[in-house]
Amino acid sequence: MALQVQIIGVGGMPDVRPGDDLATLILEAIRGQGVDIEDGDVLVVTQKIVSKAEGRLVDLRQVEPSPQARELAARTGKDPRLLEVILRESRRIVRQERDVIICETKHGLVCANAGVDTSNVGGGVVSLLPQNPDQSAERIRAAIQEKKGGISIAVIISDTFGRPWREGHTNVAIGLAGMSAMKDYVGQTDPHGYVLRVSTMAVADELAAAAELVMEKLSRVPVAIVRGFDYQRAEGSGRELIRPQERDLFR
Amino acid sequence: MALQVQIIGVGGMPDVRPGDDLATLILEAIRGQGVDIEDGDVLVVTQKIVSKAEGRLVDLRQVEPSPQARELAARTGKDPRLLEVILRESRRIVRQERDVIICETKHGLVCANAGVDTSNVGGGVVSLLPQNPDQSAERIRAAIQEKKGGISIAVIISDTFGRPWREGHTNVAIGLAGMSAMKDYVGQTDPHGYVLRVSTMAVADELAAAAELVMEKLSRVPVAIVRGFDYQRAEGSGRELIRPQERDLFR
Repeated sequence: MALQVQIIGVGGMPDVRPGDDLATLILEAIRGQGVDIEDGDVLVVTQKIVSKAEGRLVDLRQVEPSPQARELAARTGKDPRLLEVILRESRRIVRQERDVIICETKHGLVCANAGVDTSNVGGGVVSLLPQNPDQSAERIRAAIQEKKGGISIAVIISDTFGRPWREGHTNVAIGLAGMSAMKDYVGQTDPHGYVLRVSTMAVADELAAAAELVMEKLSRVPVAIVRGFDYQRAEGSGRELIRPQERDLFR
Repeated sequence: MALQVQIIGVGGMPDVRPGDDLATLILEAIRGQGVDIEDGDVLVVTQKIVSKAEGRLVDLRQVEPSPQARELAARTGKDPRLLEVILRESRRIVRQERDVIICETKHGLVCANAGVDTSNVGGGVVSLLPQNPDQSAERIRAAIQEKKGGISIAVIISDTFGRPWREGHTNVAIGLAGMSAMKDYVGQTDPHGYVLRVSTMAVADELAAAAELVMEKLSRVPVAIVRGFDYQRAEGSGRELIRPQERDLFR
């Protein structure tokens, strides 16, 4: 029998607001789709609804841009208040050219605009990344496991990032709980006895990418269930996926 | 009903040799798994078996290293004959530090060792990337469509690449046929009327990553069927995924 993995889109979520109980909303949406969550599933949740539920929103009308933000606004043509928020979320700017600003966030993530985003929020309000995406994942995981009783799942918080060298965006894991981010083949040999060239697969990023295939950007599918993937159960952390700067040839 | 995508691993392939008819071997393996290929499926095929079938193999005992390869061997501690092959496959070296060599291949792909690989080949022989992965994909696609009669599929040739900033490897698409590599949301607005921040998703890379979830490195699953994903039918090319150097901030 062929090894199969299923990716199930979970739509029908209401517009999430600060303070909402995300685990309950997700479970209701899953039921509304006529499916259920099962032991061993990986639940992929887009950052945007996590940030909204956690109140990680900033009204730009209440932001006073610093001199540095004004200076960056002059160079990029962007709103100085937006740049102020981006700078507050950043450890440093990795590259800036024309209107592109690649930041290293306080989490160590390298992405455009430090993950600060104006889409799907509305009304001059921007969303920030969750403060601690691993904790966000663990909270959702613990609440769902408690409500469902006796199942063990993994949760990944995903976001959409660009990347060097390649066009287009893909979904990656910014936080996770209940699984190792990696699948490790270190020291293992192929059928010819050669040690494998590629030894560590970033399966959490591959799961986030797979989930994106059912998360149409415009159709309110902010959650997906990935079923049938044999991950390594562990506490897990999105930090496993972040290359330390001293080992990075491109920062 | 929830939107579902299925990923079906295709194992049971024989060891592929130069000159083998890959489309026939893949169809036999699919049948052997008790499944079938259907209209609208995306077939993801790992580069390694494509390279083997196309005879993209080099016996290192027959390679005479150039002075440049010997010089690079002194700096990296690698086999000068392997480096000679890597240099022949490269347009240029993007970064070299310790034993890490990031190359831009003749195709424009940026990856370690120009895709030259010693694993899963055996006997002092290394494999090269297919000369034209889009043509490889199109050949497999045309042969399968002809044999199956009346179905239309897409084919992706995948390989395992590292990436800057993030640890671990993920699968990406190096060639494709029958679909656009991208899903485009340019100019579309979210439910609040805001133009979407992220406008182009590299779905071919996400499909390659999803397929990897059923392609265990050690268990000879070199092919996967992705079913239920609504891609844009087009001629398609892996070149869509390669950022031109003049637009790349990290090369």
